Amino acid sequence: MELSKRQETIIEIVKKHGPITGEQIAEKLNLTRATLRPDLSILTMAGLLEARPRVGYFYSGKATDRVLADKITRIKVGDVKSVPIVVPEDCSVYDAVVTMFIEDVGTLYVVRQGGLLEGVVSRKDLLKTTLGGHDIHKLPVGVIMTRMPNVHMTFENDSVWLAAHKLLTHEVDSLPVVRAVPGSKHKDYEVIGRFSKTNVTRLFVELGEGA
Amino acid sequence: MELSKRQETIIEIVKKHGPITGEQIAEKLNLTRATLRPDLSILTMAGLLEARPRVGYFYSGKATDRVLADKITRIKVGDVKSVPIVVPEDCSVYDAVVTMFIEDVGTLYVVRQGGLLEGVVSRKDLLKTTLGGHDIHKLPVGVIMTRMPNVHMTFENDSVWLAAHKLLTHEVDSLPVVRAVPGSKHKDYEVIGRFSKTNVTRLFVELGEGA
Repeated sequence: MELSKRQETIIEIVKKHGPITGEQIAEKLNLTRATLRPDLSILTMAGLLEARPRVGYFYSGKATDRVLADKITRIKVGDVKSVPIVVPEDCSVYDAVVTMFIEDVGTLYVVRQGGLLEGVVSRKDLLKTTLGGHDIHKLPVGVIMTRMPNVHMTFENDSVWLAAHKLLTHEVDSLPVVRAVPGSKHKDYEVIGRFSKTNVTRLFVELGEGA
Repeated sequence: MELSKRQETIIEIVKKHGPITGEQIAEKLNLTRATLRPDLSILTMAGLLEARPRVGYFYSGKATDRVLADKITRIKVGDVKSVPIVVPEDCSVYDAVVTMFIEDVGTLYVVRQGGLLEGVVSRKDLLKTTLGGHDIHKLPVGVIMTRMPNVHMTFENDSVWLAAHKLLTHEVDSLPVVRAVPGSKHKDYEVIGRFSKTNVTRLFVELGEGA
């Protein structure tokens, strides 16, 4: 956005003296309020200045950041989620590692009949176990997984921002995207997707392309 | 940004008929070009319409996305990078795993004297090795690492966008942030940081806060 010399000057004045009224700005420029009206409209519409009734104009240099924040918080987990990779609870640690390599994911979700979430197993969990001298062909993932209700989850309608925040707060690489099973006694959740730092990275790259 | 009824109408016309000249828009609205001038200025300044000499106005609904893209591509790797976790080439696989757990990182950088990059070792590499029945107390990471010049790297002055793009393209979780050693015969790179999907996720969350 190209600003005229006078518009640049107005911004400087508001930055320095804001909040400041239109009359006061006009005075400083030796112009009438009417002359400035189009410039002030343009600067306000463009989000560079903000006008508050009975207060005046002030500089909103954070306009760009707010545009960005708005956009980021509007995108939903459901818009970017991946296909979940699931294994049953009696899957051996060995088979879990093989599945992880074949599917090229960092986290597996452990489910029972109906795709209901029982737990999650990360690369870290598997690495720790393979190091521990267990018989990984016999040991089931159910023994080493993080079990419900200690699993951090996300929902399709959560904002990507909230889900990304959860990844950081709980220091996990991925969250199962779930749907609460209506009327279930035990607070059952069906796994319907996977949300990871890779999804965030992909979205970030897409946003940077101005897509 | 609040638009007047007339400005909304102008946008609709340009969306449908653009590129279209100011005269043509005025004609459709039964107004003079002069009457429309302030509206067209405001819409152009706000980035909603674009004007090209001898072509006319066209709709740039992607204005918001461009603001965002501009911002994302301006942030540098050096602004967000983390401390690198390094091990020497003769470090055993067992000690590498222990370092990874203690430091809580997904990738280790293998360096020689002077912090010069020799290779990288990921959780995946270590998991594959612990599974393979090797004597991980004796096997050095130098044997299993991805070795230079096959390591994907990034520089402090690269945009975060470019680095994130590299993470996706090369399907890696992290890139060593390096500085070329001036005058080195063998194209040596000193490791000065770590850039991972966690850094991207953290930045994404910060941007969403409008920080």
